[in-house]
Order: sequence, then C-alpha cells, then structure tokens
Amino acid sequence: MPERVITGVATLRQAGATQLSFYANQRYRQQLTQTQAGVVLLHEDMRSACPADAWVVANPYLTYARVAQLLHPEPSSAPGIHPTAVVAATAQLAADVCIGAGVVIGDAVRLDAGVVIGAGCVIEAGCSIGAGSRLAARVTLCRECVLGARVIIHPGAVIGADGFGFAPAEDGSWFKVPQLGRVCIGDDVEIGANTTIDRGALEDTLIGVGVKIDNQVQVAHNVRLGAHTAIAGCVGIAGSTTIGAHCTLAGGVVVLGHLALADHVHVRAMSVVTKSLTTPGIYASTLPAQEHRTWLRTSAHLHRLEHLVSRVAELEQRMTDLFVAVPQARCNHS
Amino acid sequence: MPERVITGVATLRQAGATQLSFYANQRYRQQLTQTQAGVVLLHEDMRSACPADAWVVANPYLTYARVAQLLHPEPSSAPGIHPTAVVAATAQLAADVCIGAGVVIGDAVRLDAGVVIGAGCVIEAGCSIGAGSRLAARVTLCRECVLGARVIIHPGAVIGADGFGFAPAEDGSWFKVPQLGRVCIGDDVEIGANTTIDRGALEDTLIGVGVKIDNQVQVAHNVRLGAHTAIAGCVGIAGSTTIGAHCTLAGGVVVLGHLALADHVHVRAMSVVTKSLTTPGIYASTLPAQEHRTWLRTSAHLHRLEHLVSRVAELEQRMTDLFVAVPQARCNHS
Amino acid sequence: MPERVITGVATLRQAGATQLSFYANQRYRQQLTQTQAGVVLLHEDMRSACPADAWVVANPYLTYARVAQLLHPEPSSAPGIHPTAVVAATAQLAADVCIGAGVVIGDAVRLDAGVVIGAGCVIEAGCSIGAGSRLAARVTLCRECVLGARVIIHPGAVIGADGFGFAPAEDGSWFKVPQLGRVCIGDDVEIGANTTIDRGALEDTLIGVGVKIDNQVQVAHNVRLGAHTAIAGCVGIAGSTTIGAHCTLAGGVVVLGHLALADHVHVRAMSVVTKSLTTPGIYASTLPAQEHRTWLRTSAHLHRLEHLVSRVAELEQRMTDLFVAVPQARCNHS
Repeated sequence: MPERVITGVATLRQAGATQLSFYANQRYRQQLTQTQAGVVLLHEDMRSACPADAWVVANPYLTYARVAQLLHPEPSSAPGIHPTAVVAATAQLAADVCIGAGVVIGDAVRLDAGVVIGAGCVIEAGCSIGAGSRLAARVTLCRECVLGARVIIHPGAVIGADGFGFAPAEDGSWFKVPQLGRVCIGDDVEIGANTTIDRGALEDTLIGVGVKIDNQVQVAHNVRLGAHTAIAGCVGIAGSTTIGAHCTLAGGVVVLGHLALADHVHVRAMSVVTKSLTTPGIYASTLPAQEHRTWLRTSAHLHRLEHLVSRVAELEQRMTDLFVAVPQARCNHS
Repeated sequence: MPERVITGVATLRQAGATQLSFYANQRYRQQLTQTQAGVVLLHEDMRSACPADAWVVANPYLTYARVAQLLHPEPSSAPGIHPTAVVAATAQLAADVCIGAGVVIGDAVRLDAGVVIGAGCVIEAGCSIGAGSRLAARVTLCRECVLGARVIIHPGAVIGADGFGFAPAEDGSWFKVPQLGRVCIGDDVEIGANTTIDRGALEDTLIGVGVKIDNQVQVAHNVRLGAHTAIAGCVGIAGSTTIGAHCTLAGGVVVLGHLALADHVHVRAMSVVTKSLTTPGIYASTLPAQEHRTWLRTSAHLHRLEHLVSRVAELEQRMTDLFVAVPQARCNHS
Repeated sequence: MPERVITGVATLRQAGATQLSFYANQRYRQQLTQTQAGVVLLHEDMRSACPADAWVVANPYLTYARVAQLLHPEPSSAPGIHPTAVVAATAQLAADVCIGAGVVIGDAVRLDAGVVIGAGCVIEAGCSIGAGSRLAARVTLCRECVLGARVIIHPGAVIGADGFGFAPAEDGSWFKVPQLGRVCIGDDVEIGANTTIDRGALEDTLIGVGVKIDNQVQVAHNVRLGAHTAIAGCVGIAGSTTIGAHCTLAGGVVVLGHLALADHVHVRAMSVVTKSLTTPGIYASTLPAQEHRTWLRTSAHLHRLEHLVSRVAELEQRMTDLFVAVPQARCNHS
C-alpha cells in the first residue's frame, strides 16, 4: 500500500492532502510556507521552506505539467460523424475521426487518423489536417490550409482568410490584390481563441513546428514564424515579416512588416518592433503606467524634449564661453 | 390629453418634436442650443441654454438610459427550441428557454428560466446559465462555464477556452499545461463581441457581478475582475492578475500578469500596467500622437535621453567647479 | 503563336519562365536582379536592373493586382440554398444568391443579385445586402445592418453588435443604454476576419464607400469612416469618432472617442490619437523597441524627466547669476 495517494493537482493555496502542487514562481512563496498539499514539486533550494512532502526536481513547472497531463488527460472523443455535419463526398476521412454537430467540410479535405473537429467548425475545400489534431468549436479553416500533426486550435480562430492586400489606384480607391498563397502549420502548434492567421499573397504563410499562439493574435500574410516561438495575447505581426525560432513576443506587441527577427529574440509587452533584429536578446519599448497627473507632466516634458536639448546645448556653449572669459575656472575642471 | 407625446429617443441633432433627447457631454453644447427635440434631459445648470422643453435631472445620461429602455425594450424571444438545434438528452432546460437555429448544447448543460441562446451558439458540456441571460448569435461556452443571471454575451465571444499555459522543456519546446479551472461569471455581466475569457489553469477565472466588457478584450487564465469594473475594447489582461471593483480600463490597455489592482483604479487608453497598484486613482502611460516629423525628433531625443542626463550632470559639475574657482559668483546665487 | 505564354503570377524569388512577377518595394531589389520570372512588371527606372522581360508601367503593384485578378479570378459559387440553411419565409432573396450550409437568415432580410453567404453565417432580421457582396464563413450580421454592393466580409467578423454604452448609476453599477442605431456599410468595402463594428447608440455607425478594414479591428458605436480609408490590423476606434476620407491607420493604432480626423490623415503603428486632427498629414507616437537594458535606463530617465527639466532650469539660473557676478563673461557670449 502506498504511503500517500495523490488523485489530482491544485494550487498551493487550495491543495489538500490528496493533491499535488508545485512551486515555480517566487510571488507564491508565502503560499508555499502555508500549503496543505500532499506533495509539492519544487527545486532543491526551496525544500526547507516546504511544510509538506517535497518532490525535488530540476524543473518543477515542467514536471508538474507532465503529472497534470497524466492525472487529467484530455477527454477522448468517440469517433464518428454527427448526423448534422455536412461533409463533401470528395473529403478523405480517416476511419476514427470525430466530427461534431453542424460542422461543414468542403471538397477534397483530408483528415488524418484521430482528428477531432468541434461543433460548428467550417473546413473549406482542399484543407488537410494531420493525425491527432483537435479543432475546438467554431474554428474556420479557409481553403487549402495545411495543418501538421497534433495541432490544437481554439474556438473562433480563423486560419487562411485573405491577407490585407490592396494596391492604391489613381483615383484614390484601393484595388484588391488576390491572395493566392496558403497557410501551412507545422506539427504540435497550438493557436488561441479568435486568433487570425492570413493566407499568403503569393507564397505561403508559415507557422513552424511547436509554435504556441495565444488568443486574439493577428498574423498577417506571408509571415513566417520559426519553430517553438511563443506569442502572447493581442500581438499583431504585419505582413511579410519573418520571426526566428525560440522567440517570445509578450502581450500586445506589434511587429511591423517586411522585417526579420533572429532566433531567440524576446520582445516585452506592448513594444513596437520597427526594425529587423539580427541579434538574439531582449527588446522593449514598454512604457509603464504611472499616476496620471505625474504622467501628464512627464508626457508634456517629453513633447518638449527637443527644446530641453536646445537649452542644454545653449548652457554648454555659455559654459565654454565662460571658460574662455574666466581662464582660472579651467584649472579646477577635470 | 397630455400636452406633449414622446414616442422615442434621438440625438440632439436628429430629434424632432415627438422625441426625447439628452445633454451630458459638453462637446455637444452647440447641438443643444439648436435642438428641435420635444424634451431634453439635462442638468439644472444647462436649463437656460436649452431651446426646447427641459427635463431637469441630477444625472441626465442615466435618466435617458432608463427612459430609452422603457420606450425601446429588448425584443422578446418566443420560447422554444429550433428544430435544427442539437440538445443533449442530459441537458436541463427551463420550460421557457429560447434556443436558436443550429445551436449545439452539450451534456448536463443547465439553462434557467428565460435564457435565450442565439443562432449558432455552442454550449459545451457542464455549463450552467442563470435566469434571464441572453447569448447573441455564435457565442462559444467551453465546458463547465458558470454564468449568473441576466448575463449578456455578444456574438463571437469565446468563454472558457484553454489558457496559454506551457512549460519550457529542456529541448526548447513547450509542454502543454492542462487547463483545469473554469470560468465563473457573476450576475448582470455583459461581454462584447469576439471577446475571449480563458478558463483557469487550476483555480477558476472569476468575473464579478455587474462587470461590463467591451469587444475584442482578452482576459487570460486565473484573472479575477471585481464587481462593476468596466473594460473597454482591445484591452488585454495577462494571467493570474486580480483587478478590484469599480475599476475602469480604457481602450487598448494591457495589464501584465500576476499583479493586483486595488478597487477604483482607472487606467487611461493604451497604457501598460507593469506593477501592482495598491492606491485608488488614475494611471496612464498614454503617449499622444503628434505630427510625424516632430515626433521623430522627439523620439530620437528620447532614445538619447541618457546622454542628455550625462550632459546635464557634466554641466552641474563644471558649474560647481566654477563656483570654487570664482568665489564671488557664489554670493549672487540663492 | 505568342512569343511568351504567362499562366500565373509569383514572387520574384519563386517565379519561373511562364510566370509574371512585379517589383514595387526596394527591399526586394536583390531578388529582382536574380529573378527567373518570364515577365516582371516594374517602373521605368528599374528596367536596367531586370534580367527578365520587363513590362514597364507607371504603377507596377496596381498593374500586378489587375493581372492577378484576371489570371486568378475569385472562384464562382453556384447559385442555390443549401438544404441545411434556415431562411425566414419573409426574406427576399434574388434568384441567383448562394447560401451555404448551416446559414441562418432572419425575417425580412433582403439579399440582392449575386450575393454569396458562406457556411455558418447568421444574418439577423431586417438586414439588407447589396448586389455582388460576399460573406465568407461564420460572419454575423446583427439586426438591420445595411450593406452596399460588392462588400466582402471575412470569417468571424461581427457587424452590428450592441455598442458599449452604460450609464453610471448612483450605487456604482452600470445601467445599459439601449443601442438603437444601425451599421450602414457603403459599396466596395472589405472587412477582415474577426473584426467588430458596433451598431450606433442612436444614429448609425457609417462605413464609407471603398473602406478597407483588416483583421481584429474594433469600430465602436457611432463611428463614421470616410470613403477609401484603410485600417490595418488590431486598430481600435472609440465611440462617436469621425475619420475622414483617404485616411490610413496603421497596425495597433487607438483613436479615442468623440474626435474628428480630417481627410488624408495617416497615423503610424501603435500610436494613440487623443485629439482631433484638422490638418492632413502623418501623425505618430510610435516608440521603437530597443535593447532591453538600454530601454530600462531610458524609461527610468523618462520618468524622471521633470526632475531633469528642473536641473536644467537651475543651471540656467546659476548661469544667469554668474553673468551678473562675473561681467566679463558676458562679452564672449553671443
């Protein structure tokens, strides 16, 4: 008989004697010291602060994730096609796919083994989805999207809509540029709710293997995202920009178009990337909020910054003049 | 017979003799002086500027809203389940619910009295929706969401999708952290079109009573929003952040993760909250747009600000040296 | 027999002998010099740099768009109503409309000749859609929206949801203001995936002819957009703002409410427009990302900018005092 039975996972604050928790962020140190969890995953150097049984590992959050997946596996979906789904006769479906209510699947769509399509999804003609991929409810794949294996897409995401391409005409109107490329998504990609990834204008929009994209992200046409890059909520990436592998873009970042970012570039929240970044590293233009009246004064000074620079230059000139006029001042100045 | 019959509401600019209007924003003062409205709701101190019948109240906009609701009630929806809806046998539906075309309702869903579900909504297993709530068309509730009474959700909103939780693995890939919490939404909450609210990772994401959320807002996992807080369009709130009651976040604000904002905190448009805010008040880092060439110079000076600070320090040092060298200068300086 | 047969279009990099390409952005100059395209559209002054047959035109990108539309026309949709569509008996449909699977069309909706409604769209009561308009999959039109001819709307867009209008009540709660206006959209408008355009509170929200809106854009109630204005991804426009004709808003811009922007105003990425702009021109408050540690210092200096201004004023005062105390300094200073 085991000494301790763990039946689930919980936060340090809520875990009880039959639950496992983890410590991976120093903001929760106090919760660690008070936890009633049965077992806590933590790093060696926190062992002494833990009142519960400690499971010492090199990477507590990663081990936690693995344990949580074991204890709480994704609910399986019984194979079958819901009678209200509309599936084109030319679609090629593996025997064990699961297709939900109200799904619409177009001509020549191909679904590999174990694919799950949630209620209300629309998969347009010519799409192909690799084995084990799961689309949640109400996802749209426009024509000819190619998804790898084990891709997860959350509700409301739109993959493969036309890019924003218009040529300015002589009369000031905009002439639509046909969007002829596809969206190709690698294995093990996850895409958040209401995120949009546009099809390429000519070449394909490419999402590398293992890329993780949060909710409400906009990826424009011809963008290429390198493998294992992670993109937080509300990010916008403009057209024809290439982002390297293992990058992270924090919430609200905008990356302008036609740029190239190297591998291992990390951009902090609400920054704007206006130039290509060829060196790995952390980049930012985040402007932290402060008390409003203070900020109003700071902002006003900022808008007069050029004037301040002139005033400093004037002072420097006068100081130089002064040293000419009062020579003995010079000897005291290093 | 009444002296005046009012049949509807309109703006100061468009209202005619049978319509009621209101004055609540000084930007529209000129429109007030020229209005042809039958009656104008306004504050005492504007009575003399109004050429029409004035209805003097303490809070014209609030009274207007009440009158408008009386004159233009929400169109009622006849109870019934559309024949194309797919409702699980285990769902518990109050007798008078209204379920639109193409709706999909999962196992053990509970809908209380008077709930209206618009066309194309997907309500996954285990959700519960309180009395009088209305979901517009094409809303998604993922599994186990709990909604209070009189909640309104606009089209395209996605409630309860997986949070963005991934543990970095040794090989540079991301390992998915199961998202096991729920989304719990209080009474009288309204949620805008295409807004996303993620389920908790372990504990629940909590939306307090009376919270109002505009369109295209992203609320990440484990966030807690206090009662009567209002959030404008395009806001992003990162994971595990707690926001107090009666707060307002203006358009485009980003609040970083794991922070706590006090009650009555107000953040102005496009600001980034990077630290917890323990004091009620107004906060901002809004940077107003200016003429582009001027801004380019300002921005260049900003990026050289550290150099300017050095130049000022150098001037200060030289000035100090000078006072040592030219003693008589000192006496004139206060 | 023609000397050269062109069967399609491609990028300079990928085009072969039977494909046409174009050169319109100097970033791709090197690709031009190495292209294997059959024909390249370009401006006169680039003719000598082109190793392939050159087709010299005044506006290569516009001509390219026209050729691409000829070679790659939008796939036509066979007229007909899918048997799973739910169409109200009172809807008025032109004979040749195409209505996809699972579409829901409400009372008194009017669809003119050649309208195409993609799978899963919901068109609420009283909407009207002009000839030749195409809604992609899963678009929502709330009640009474009016669309002109040749409008294109991409998946997930929500047109006509309630605006964000609440009056603050005495007890700190928010009272809903009925949203009674409509959304009216001119001819030749294109609207991106998951974009939201709210109905007016009283007057209508108006989108002028030829306006192009990218993905994930939020247009609040009562906004008016002038003809041929183009709005890039992730922009937010707050309520009751009027934007002129032929404007462009780049990605991530926020425009505050109740403002007026003149015709031909152009706002650069991630800027915030806080005041009305009465003069055509380019405006910005874009803050380019830089190396993080450098930015941290810059940002810290910025937040102490008022203090720096005081230090400069102090230096100026001391300098003035000094000139009084050391008169001969004056003569050297211009």
